[in-house]
Amino acid sequence: MSGPELHPDIAPLGFLLGSWIGEGTGYYSTIEDFAYGEEIRVSHVGKPFLSYTQRTWSLDDGRPLHGESGFWRLTGGTHVELVIAHPTGVVEVAEGELSGTSIALATTATAKTQSAKDVEQLTRDIRVRHDELAYDLHMAAVGQPLQPHLRARLTRTGA
Amino acid sequence: MSGPELHPDIAPLGFLLGSWIGEGTGYYSTIEDFAYGEEIRVSHVGKPFLSYTQRTWSLDDGRPLHGESGFWRLTGGTHVELVIAHPTGVVEVAEGELSGTSIALATTATAKTQSAKDVEQLTRDIRVRHDELAYDLHMAAVGQPLQPHLRARLTRTGA
Repeated sequence: MSGPELHPDIAPLGFLLGSWIGEGTGYYSTIEDFAYGEEIRVSHVGKPFLSYTQRTWSLDDGRPLHGESGFWRLTGGTHVELVIAHPTGVVEVAEGELSGTSIALATTATAKTQSAKDVEQLTRDIRVRHDELAYDLHMAAVGQPLQPHLRARLTRTGA
Repeated sequence: MSGPELHPDIAPLGFLLGSWIGEGTGYYSTIEDFAYGEEIRVSHVGKPFLSYTQRTWSLDDGRPLHGESGFWRLTGGTHVELVIAHPTGVVEVAEGELSGTSIALATTATAKTQSAKDVEQLTRDIRVRHDELAYDLHMAAVGQPLQPHLRARLTRTGA
């Protein structure tokens, strides 16, 4: 697909670009384990950010589970910023560090609508190797301490 | 396009669904007026929210200007909640009221990344009549009081 050149300020995150599909497992101390399918899309328009959308579905019956969307930014070559809207009525800012093709992020700020139930604190560890993306997400929510919540592995299916 | 039924909790916002294309004009006390093209996409997966992405481009040379993404929610039949991520490193919560097929929203909370420059306060007045969507956006930013900033008119081009 032809398009604008990747902006140099965001080029070190270019390894995230593309459509990714895969499967993951969810855990939490308060619920049963569950298996999910996931699609992630990361694109750009030539400006110094990447656009991001994500959705997951149950591997049991295909029903939609979660979704989120937002933007990736990079400053100083290694400081990664992710701004995300969640359909639960929560917006999240996550920041962290890029190391090679690995990214470690933690929630730094959140805000929510009047009706949103709870605000979660998350950490995300993302590793990309060629066309494989793996992540581990830890979550502190519903009064529980930070603990493993999601682990998935996706394959790049297109640019 | 066939798909899941619209969730009844969000059905009163169903008039937003579709792909919209149009043009607008931007104003601000600190800049020259400018003309822009805009595409808005609103979709759903059968859960009680609508997914939203938007992008604008200059009518001068087609270069991308802004973009945002997030989710629409509705509680109590008329209380509208919009959570948005902006590529400027800002996340925004806007809330307001639905009246027929008109929506009036104002920013209620924001958060930002370390590198984001400023946080804006916005109001959005959106009116849909059949396949035409018009909006007025007011903005308080860069030390300026709330004032008209964007006005656009879009046409629904698809479901």
